[in-house]
Amino acid sequence: MSSEAKRSVSIFGATGSVGTSTLDLIRLDRNNYKILALTANDNAEDLAKLSIEFDAELAVLADPSGLAHLQQLLSGTSVKAAAGPDNLLAAAHLDADWTMAAIVGCAGLPPTLEALKHGKTVALANKEALVSAGALMMAEARAAGATMLPVDSEHNAIFQCLQGARIDHVRKITLTASGGPFRTWTRQQMASVTPQQAVAHPNWDMGAKISVDSATMMNKGLELIEAHHLFPVGLKNIEILVHPQSVIHSMVEYRDRSTLAQLGSPDMRIPIASALAWPERMETDCKPLDLVTISQLDFEAPDLERFPAIKLARSAIESGGGKPAILNAANEIAVAAFLNGTIQFLEITEIVSRVLEGYSPPQPESLDDIFAIDEAARARATHLVEEMTV
Amino acid sequence: MSSEAKRSVSIFGATGSVGTSTLDLIRLDRNNYKILALTANDNAEDLAKLSIEFDAELAVLADPSGLAHLQQLLSGTSVKAAAGPDNLLAAAHLDADWTMAAIVGCAGLPPTLEALKHGKTVALANKEALVSAGALMMAEARAAGATMLPVDSEHNAIFQCLQGARIDHVRKITLTASGGPFRTWTRQQMASVTPQQAVAHPNWDMGAKISVDSATMMNKGLELIEAHHLFPVGLKNIEILVHPQSVIHSMVEYRDRSTLAQLGSPDMRIPIASALAWPERMETDCKPLDLVTISQLDFEAPDLERFPAIKLARSAIESGGGKPAILNAANEIAVAAFLNGTIQFLEITEIVSRVLEGYSPPQPESLDDIFAIDEAARARATHLVEEMTV
Repeated sequence: MSSEAKRSVSIFGATGSVGTSTLDLIRLDRNNYKILALTANDNAEDLAKLSIEFDAELAVLADPSGLAHLQQLLSGTSVKAAAGPDNLLAAAHLDADWTMAAIVGCAGLPPTLEALKHGKTVALANKEALVSAGALMMAEARAAGATMLPVDSEHNAIFQCLQGARIDHVRKITLTASGGPFRTWTRQQMASVTPQQAVAHPNWDMGAKISVDSATMMNKGLELIEAHHLFPVGLKNIEILVHPQSVIHSMVEYRDRSTLAQLGSPDMRIPIASALAWPERMETDCKPLDLVTISQLDFEAPDLERFPAIKLARSAIESGGGKPAILNAANEIAVAAFLNGTIQFLEITEIVSRVLEGYSPPQPESLDDIFAIDEAARARATHLVEEMTV
Repeated sequence: MSSEAKRSVSIFGATGSVGTSTLDLIRLDRNNYKILALTANDNAEDLAKLSIEFDAELAVLADPSGLAHLQQLLSGTSVKAAAGPDNLLAAAHLDADWTMAAIVGCAGLPPTLEALKHGKTVALANKEALVSAGALMMAEARAAGATMLPVDSEHNAIFQCLQGARIDHVRKITLTASGGPFRTWTRQQMASVTPQQAVAHPNWDMGAKISVDSATMMNKGLELIEAHHLFPVGLKNIEILVHPQSVIHSMVEYRDRSTLAQLGSPDMRIPIASALAWPERMETDCKPLDLVTISQLDFEAPDLERFPAIKLARSAIESGGGKPAILNAANEIAVAAFLNGTIQFLEITEIVSRVLEGYSPPQPESLDDIFAIDEAARARATHLVEEMTV
């Protein structure tokens, strides 16, 4: 980067954890980046502060009701304020060399798709883009020649292990999984798990939803769906391996039986830095890996009976169509119900399984189709939650 | 490879273990290779057999006294027979796309240097080329634009982890070491080690000399010297990490704190296949890595007090000049003396240390200089062995 022109960057979801981590990294090498657009959902204060600090061209709030506040915060600066879904889409058209898609949830889909349709280089941190709308996103990305840089530690690891290689030379991709806090628990023990127990993730500091997904191993199911779209090696060639220390973030085995793995400390800035500087490498101040102190890495096969989420995800991929979007939506409703004490831990995957079984919409052809499937799946899951708690 | 012209290959040291493994791999994809020269030291029978099987253009014996026998074995075939050092050098001029340098010992230096001087792509399995003559080899390789493909599992791992990357983006290279059979032994316990105990390597099936080098950890010292020449990241940025299972063959940490590692089953055909098909990947029938069965990987820092060989190698690199060649030559004499019961296990590194201390020849400028240093170091080591056994 250092000898070239500044890289122009837009960040969708700039005030969230991935967005602020991205900006942290840009601070380390500030002179090599030019910020075009920063966006946030409704956090006008933080968005204005970051936009001023990074001298952004444009700040966009997804929530149109915050526009006046944002304009006021940015008055007298060179940052242009905007708000609402159309302006979010317009921001995805700006001439950015690199776009971070880090808006959480289905709200992230339209700007992500827009950036891909315009052939951009998109760092992908929005899970729904590939879980719910993977086929659509990949088709548009391929058609437009867009580059997708996965930011999730597992997919970023695989991406790194594939550099300079041909995907048809891959024999197997191994997604590693921590196994979550109940890795060694029986189904019977898991039956009485509390939300507090489920959110205590052993390796990463994460939000409650993602922690519960780690506890059910649904996170690995969702990642399997993403990996299936990103790395076309065939679903049967993508394995999940339980590795409690989460030091090896994932692996690629080539047909000559060489395996490449990416390892690192549990710091999301490492995969973000890899995507930000790609195909170069930037200096970061992240903690180096210290295998002498870590001392031991363990591996075991995942237990699909105790963790049915993995099977649900695999079968959702095999069925295709709207099934992965249904799995994702039903899981969100079920996890929320578990977190607020409405259902039991084991009922999370039960609800997902029942919504998947009972709802087979036609093949989604557009984001609107996917939003409709998402909504219907949420309604069905909510209905099941209510039934269970009567 | 499949869609392109055949790759023409010459193998120096075709009847040894690396040579025959290379030919095993070529058998798997026979139609994509054309064999130019196969060479052997004095094993005319095997050389003739392989040359006929692979329809080589030329078979060369290093030992000129075997020529008549080789000619007789090859009479009536299209394989041309030759022998002697000059013909070995001439074979290195042939128009090979890929050359395997697998002659054992200093005898491998002249043809290896010759191939590098002609800008060839050389798979390097001869340890002395880089240990004793590293500066010379690298200078000639750079001047001629030759490509060196390391075949040793550790260096091949590093080479794989560096694909598509810039060497100045590397923060640290980690050479893994099994730690050998005496990894957990005290110096006192090591004092009475027998040759039989020393040759029982835990992970790899190797010859006696290499097994003893693994037991003293001198093998890692020699590999450190090689890595220093192959990967110019600065000696202080090359670390040794003890990893008893030898599953991770080595690692590269980039400046963003991402670490890439290469893993595999303990089968030398895997790194050879990687070099043979580079920059592509060939299909092999080597055993895939099974981390579920392996279950656990351990790591610890090497103990430089119990294993002084590593310090000796590091200081030989720092001193430069002929010191690495002296270390290698003295070690060979000392290991041979240990294997035939003349000296004790701990005296191996003691002899190496004393020869290194007592002999500081001028900077070698040619292979002849290196051969002279090698010979003088052997004489000094032999003299010390005799002193010790009086």
